[in-house]
Amino acid sequence: MAGRYVVVGGGAAGIGAAGAIKGLDPEASLQVFTEYEDAAYSPCGIPYVHGREIDSFERLFLQGKEFYEEQGIDIHYETRVGRIDLGAREVELAPSGETPFDTGGRAELPAGGGERVPFDRLVVATGFDYEAPDIPGTDLEGQYYVKNIRRAMEWDKVLDDARSVVVLGASPLGLEMITSMAHRGLETHVVDPHPWALAEAADPDIVEPVQESWAEMGVQMHFNTKAEALLGEGTVRAVQTSDGEIACDVVVICTHKRPNNRLAGEAGLKIGSTGGIVVDEGMRTTTEGVFAAGDVAEIPHGLTKLPLQGLSGSHAYAQGKIAGANAAGGDRAYRPVYVPWGMVAGKWMIGGVSFGESTASALGIPFVMGVAQGISRARYYPDMKPIKVKLLAEPDSLRLIGAQMVGGEGIKERADFLAMAARTGITLGDLATMENVYSPPIGALGEPISAAAQNALSEQGLL
Amino acid sequence: MAGRYVVVGGGAAGIGAAGAIKGLDPEASLQVFTEYEDAAYSPCGIPYVHGREIDSFERLFLQGKEFYEEQGIDIHYETRVGRIDLGAREVELAPSGETPFDTGGRAELPAGGGERVPFDRLVVATGFDYEAPDIPGTDLEGQYYVKNIRRAMEWDKVLDDARSVVVLGASPLGLEMITSMAHRGLETHVVDPHPWALAEAADPDIVEPVQESWAEMGVQMHFNTKAEALLGEGTVRAVQTSDGEIACDVVVICTHKRPNNRLAGEAGLKIGSTGGIVVDEGMRTTTEGVFAAGDVAEIPHGLTKLPLQGLSGSHAYAQGKIAGANAAGGDRAYRPVYVPWGMVAGKWMIGGVSFGESTASALGIPFVMGVAQGISRARYYPDMKPIKVKLLAEPDSLRLIGAQMVGGEGIKERADFLAMAARTGITLGDLATMENVYSPPIGALGEPISAAAQNALSEQGLL
Repeated sequence: MAGRYVVVGGGAAGIGAAGAIKGLDPEASLQVFTEYEDAAYSPCGIPYVHGREIDSFERLFLQGKEFYEEQGIDIHYETRVGRIDLGAREVELAPSGETPFDTGGRAELPAGGGERVPFDRLVVATGFDYEAPDIPGTDLEGQYYVKNIRRAMEWDKVLDDARSVVVLGASPLGLEMITSMAHRGLETHVVDPHPWALAEAADPDIVEPVQESWAEMGVQMHFNTKAEALLGEGTVRAVQTSDGEIACDVVVICTHKRPNNRLAGEAGLKIGSTGGIVVDEGMRTTTEGVFAAGDVAEIPHGLTKLPLQGLSGSHAYAQGKIAGANAAGGDRAYRPVYVPWGMVAGKWMIGGVSFGESTASALGIPFVMGVAQGISRARYYPDMKPIKVKLLAEPDSLRLIGAQMVGGEGIKERADFLAMAARTGITLGDLATMENVYSPPIGALGEPISAAAQNALSEQGLL
Repeated sequence: MAGRYVVVGGGAAGIGAAGAIKGLDPEASLQVFTEYEDAAYSPCGIPYVHGREIDSFERLFLQGKEFYEEQGIDIHYETRVGRIDLGAREVELAPSGETPFDTGGRAELPAGGGERVPFDRLVVATGFDYEAPDIPGTDLEGQYYVKNIRRAMEWDKVLDDARSVVVLGASPLGLEMITSMAHRGLETHVVDPHPWALAEAADPDIVEPVQESWAEMGVQMHFNTKAEALLGEGTVRAVQTSDGEIACDVVVICTHKRPNNRLAGEAGLKIGSTGGIVVDEGMRTTTEGVFAAGDVAEIPHGLTKLPLQGLSGSHAYAQGKIAGANAAGGDRAYRPVYVPWGMVAGKWMIGGVSFGESTASALGIPFVMGVAQGISRARYYPDMKPIKVKLLAEPDSLRLIGAQMVGGEGIKERADFLAMAARTGITLGDLATMENVYSPPIGALGEPISAAAQNALSEQGLL
């Protein structure tokens, strides 16, 4: 259709959208605007460079800028869109030189006033920022918002001179940063108001081995503890908490992801209860020809139908592809999400699907449950690792509705499996009778998923 | 019900059956007969001790003999059942001292004549032997049938003095033994009549990296080559093949698994087309109160409904549990199989589900296919490994009917997933839109299963 497309945002969603547009409409005029110096690097890799698991930030770049040029995708770097004019179907750029970074959303952002760029189809993929803590002292230097790779390179040098770090928030990013800071050898503290790490997603028995391994790594954990102020003069020197002061050289802000919805909201796109842009299953906003994707959009949970926002880069990329394809005249649907998740934390991997025992209980969702402790390879094979699996199912149908896991390997693959299981209505009966590969170096005689399902059935008197 | 139970066989199926019987009928009189000196060790671990990946045969023992005594399971070691008398409902033991081992089925086995043991319920779990090659020279010393742990301990000493080994048959065991012999540093040859390794199960493009890695390890591959005779005087000194002589000190026999069906057949139990005992979904044979499980039984393939025999130890154990539970008055069903499989071969893992391109084509089963080359972690994360996934689906419904994979990690877990997908009717559309965990140390942005499904849809003009 050779239309004029604008994509706002150069992250996974924006790049996914741009690729899909060019795939379906090769002659398209396509402009991508990003406030940053780069696109197509992996921000998710940043914690591991800080942690010295990865040796260089350069390795995080996926493509050179010439790659996009060759594809006919015109990316405007360091260019902030200041305003979206839905009536005129134009985006208005912010005047150059007025682009603050890493503010955690605290600074006043410049509005438009610069060049106006017309579009036929628009994809809003403005992503998220970590929420600034609502406490005194957030104007001090020494606070690190982990997100942009250029800033990460600068902060890595700051960390070279640091002795101690406080991670504010045992969020997913928090877990990664705690682990990487400890791995790097810094005195590492975590401050979180909940009773255990990742308490909004993970069950305490799943997180327990992680916390034990952090303790072994020297991490000092301050749970049930509120950060009350950042202290210092010019630069932070301590975090004031509900349980006393923690001296530190750097504070790493690992708060909630907050959708960057200002442009969308000011333009009049509908914003949902999570702060994310409301989209239909085709990633279409409430305005014809305008799409949204990634962390700035909200997506329904497959089971609860509640809107979710701030999922993974994989989700953002997939949403971007749907948004781009539909912008270019396609008709593709993004399905409700069951949210497989997983990460390395401390010396373990943890992960899950949908929700765990704590969340289901908090939401008042009834469930039956089965737990099993299994192993990843034959018991006698080198590097065998334990794997604990918890499965939650709907009481009558016994359909899988959630899972949580902690173990030494194979957590990602099992979470992917169980997310599909939840989506397609697979039951505990199915899982209890699943076949599994048995080969000593790669799989044990019994599969822990199956054992957990069998245990659940057994406790229900059904086996 | 406190009945009298006899289990013939002390492998995974027999031990699974015994445990299930005692679980449901704790007061049962339960006798297990095994011709071997041990039960409850892992024969599947033997190749890895030979290969020096595992440091000792002792590690393969799962339980001491006292474990079964404590459970009230009376295991009779080194005791061969010579005859089953279904009319009298007795098993008749072979006279002691007449138990040949590791014959590959060549020797005349003693019939009954010893003690008679009555039963109310019988589980036949007599397992398999590797078929003896039908060529001259099989009476020579120096032929190793990998199965029994005591024999393996003796053969490990023989291997200490060996310089070169010929593996006869690139079967699943053959792949393990080729890899372990090369890893141990022996001059390793494989002779197989097919054009590539594991040709009856795996596609050539899946096996290709394995064969390349064997070449790097110094393995000498003789495909499209028939073994015509074993040469030597008293002890084997060479294998005569259709392509010349291969000098060797030891020949490892890795032929087909042949069900040990003599007892069952002579007793009058119905034997199927595979040579396995015919059972219903409750593992019941054609005779009331008599069950069969494991490698001696045949089980329908979930898609083709064709009977299969000689699956994994995990299958055998699960079947044994069903047989035992039903023998003790339960009513449980073993489902048709989709056969997830996987193993380490050379420097890779290979695996699959159901069947691949070659087998489907040979069987005349129509399919559409998608292939993707993916990665196991973020591209930049240490120890990232490639993973290739091939998916086969029914042309119209697009339901998954098979998969093949080769890669560096996560093959077992993906095969388990895809076996359940095939069983529950999951489609390429489902897999193309699957969610996946993205976290640099454990999973890449894109999941290769999803990419393969997307490629299949794309080739069909459906994406």
